[in-house]
Amino acid sequence: MLNFVFENPAKIIFGKDQLSRLAPEIKKHSDRVLLVYGGGSIKKTGLYQQVTAALKENAVTYVELSGVPANPRIETVRAGIKLCRENDIGLVLAVGGGSVVDCAKTIAAGYYYAGDPWDFFTYSARITNALPVGVVLTLAASGSEMNVNAVINNDQTQEKIGVGSRHLIPRFAILDPVNTFTVPPEQTAAGAADIMSHVFEQYFSANSGAYLLDRLCEAVLQTCIHYTPIAIKEPDNYEARANLMWAGTIALNGLLSTGKETDWAAHGIEHQLSAMYDMTHGLGLALLIPHWMEYVLNENTAGKLAEYARNVWSVKDDDDFTAARRGIQLTRDFFQAIGLTGTLKDQGVTAESLPLMAEKAAARPLGSFKKLDVQDVLNILQAAY
Amino acid sequence: MLNFVFENPAKIIFGKDQLSRLAPEIKKHSDRVLLVYGGGSIKKTGLYQQVTAALKENAVTYVELSGVPANPRIETVRAGIKLCRENDIGLVLAVGGGSVVDCAKTIAAGYYYAGDPWDFFTYSARITNALPVGVVLTLAASGSEMNVNAVINNDQTQEKIGVGSRHLIPRFAILDPVNTFTVPPEQTAAGAADIMSHVFEQYFSANSGAYLLDRLCEAVLQTCIHYTPIAIKEPDNYEARANLMWAGTIALNGLLSTGKETDWAAHGIEHQLSAMYDMTHGLGLALLIPHWMEYVLNENTAGKLAEYARNVWSVKDDDDFTAARRGIQLTRDFFQAIGLTGTLKDQGVTAESLPLMAEKAAARPLGSFKKLDVQDVLNILQAAY
Repeated sequence: MLNFVFENPAKIIFGKDQLSRLAPEIKKHSDRVLLVYGGGSIKKTGLYQQVTAALKENAVTYVELSGVPANPRIETVRAGIKLCRENDIGLVLAVGGGSVVDCAKTIAAGYYYAGDPWDFFTYSARITNALPVGVVLTLAASGSEMNVNAVINNDQTQEKIGVGSRHLIPRFAILDPVNTFTVPPEQTAAGAADIMSHVFEQYFSANSGAYLLDRLCEAVLQTCIHYTPIAIKEPDNYEARANLMWAGTIALNGLLSTGKETDWAAHGIEHQLSAMYDMTHGLGLALLIPHWMEYVLNENTAGKLAEYARNVWSVKDDDDFTAARRGIQLTRDFFQAIGLTGTLKDQGVTAESLPLMAEKAAARPLGSFKKLDVQDVLNILQAAY
Repeated sequence: MLNFVFENPAKIIFGKDQLSRLAPEIKKHSDRVLLVYGGGSIKKTGLYQQVTAALKENAVTYVELSGVPANPRIETVRAGIKLCRENDIGLVLAVGGGSVVDCAKTIAAGYYYAGDPWDFFTYSARITNALPVGVVLTLAASGSEMNVNAVINNDQTQEKIGVGSRHLIPRFAILDPVNTFTVPPEQTAAGAADIMSHVFEQYFSANSGAYLLDRLCEAVLQTCIHYTPIAIKEPDNYEARANLMWAGTIALNGLLSTGKETDWAAHGIEHQLSAMYDMTHGLGLALLIPHWMEYVLNENTAGKLAEYARNVWSVKDDDDFTAARRGIQLTRDFFQAIGLTGTLKDQGVTAESLPLMAEKAAARPLGSFKKLDVQDVLNILQAAY
């Protein structure tokens, strides 16, 4: 195990009927809120009405920023920062999934930065402060509700880039699994693929000896494999939704990467698909990951991929390569079974764009389980095409 | 899954050569420290010299409270509070294992309480504030370095009682596995039994549906089973010590009990042994737990005990009762293999004391996986006798 520092002060309020706790948590920080949400599904489900009623009843003033898309754009962040400054906002409240949370976090950091918030993503400016962020989560996927990360798209530069800062950890997040009952099957599946991909990025590590962390990773993977088909078939199955929701948070709150180098190559590649084609992040990952696994399978990695196959998929083969290949096939089968199927071509990706995406993905060092160069990335993209 | 709130802001600094971080962490809070430690083993290992050198080099003034015993006594707590008040102390630094940490935490809370600190343990006073606590950990066992708990002995009343308060969560803890290389085999084993018992108390729950948490519990148990024999055989095996150390923290930092009722009956019974006979906590637990498992095995609990046997011990039996019994036997075998062997009688416990201990343990509601009354506790104690 490598040295590490683990510190995550986010307060998670988990379960049914927790909205009465929203206003008291907000008022620890401010009574002036920027309410950030997406395309309006929270109005259909009634969550918007519940949240705004709770704010009004508790004399919390709010300004709205709606229409945050999946793959949130830097323009929306800029608009949010402007609203915060004009309205003397003291807390940014995200009501939605990972895109809404990431947008809210970036607004919160941009508030304290005089320049353009895209500077954070080109690494020409560092996040040194942020408004407090609160979350009411509606999707089990990104883990953003309890971590340092925010990922934002820039249409001008056709980039999707993530940043991390301890200032971005939300102060509190309300996780009511009931708020995910209305998530449709394809988004439920994409969310689960996102959770599993986060685990893969931390599980498949060049380091050995982090046995405890590997077993914890397998626990989260098994949970996704067990409950995703149930949640798709029975959208209001509380047990399934609750396990997936908490799994999504634990998958990326820092715990699973303690003591390890992490990989993140699949994310580096997928971000190009989301940036150029606005592809759903979890779908893009599901289409890429089995090909990434196949591509990185070699003498150095076979043992670990076989361990995955044996511990997560109960594969019995003695030979590491055989077991690893079987595990990869079962991973592909699983993604297909939950509806994450097809090729990049099916999703409208053009063959001509693959070299550019490969170049962008490999512009910075990519991968640690196996380091990937431009040609490696192109090979993986072509395999998935 | 039941509703829960999870919030744990402790900063964990894990790994080799981290003592340079000690003084900066302390000085975030104060430059006047009460240095709490045990019987002097840290002087033999040189850790005392390293810690005090780091304090002196960074102009941190310190007052010492040494001699904290295993099963820390309320008298030591009282002495520590007096030292804090006389010396205008701003942070309590525990250098040791769980007993030292629990003593430091109780001193930190008692500092702000005008009455006697035992009042916290009779529940006649609540902890409403505490001095900041820092930890340099030397034993993988209690998990106290990242949690709300403190357990203290009172020789006058022959009681060992725990309290919990968010004010008791240490601000930081330095976990260097190298500092556990010198822990002798019997303490290494007792520490592992303590960690495993913490998991058992959360794993064996009357609630179903917390699949994710069950798998996470199994991960920690498997880690203890895998590495304890290695750490006993090769005391300076870093990988084994590191995995056990982080397992001990994760076992009781609140994560594994999210969404579940917990049991804590075995602890309730063992505390009587530690209170009356000053028994090593982990040893007492190892002697009791297989008997507790056998005693609580019934139609309601067989499924869960069989799940434990299958997932942790790879037991293959189809029948739940058969599988459960096999898992219990493997648990007993494991404790014996790491040297935690014998009966309560072997440890100097008298047959006459069993009814009194049973009465004390069952004075408050005991158990949740299976509720236990006085006669139940007596039966378990007699089985272990």
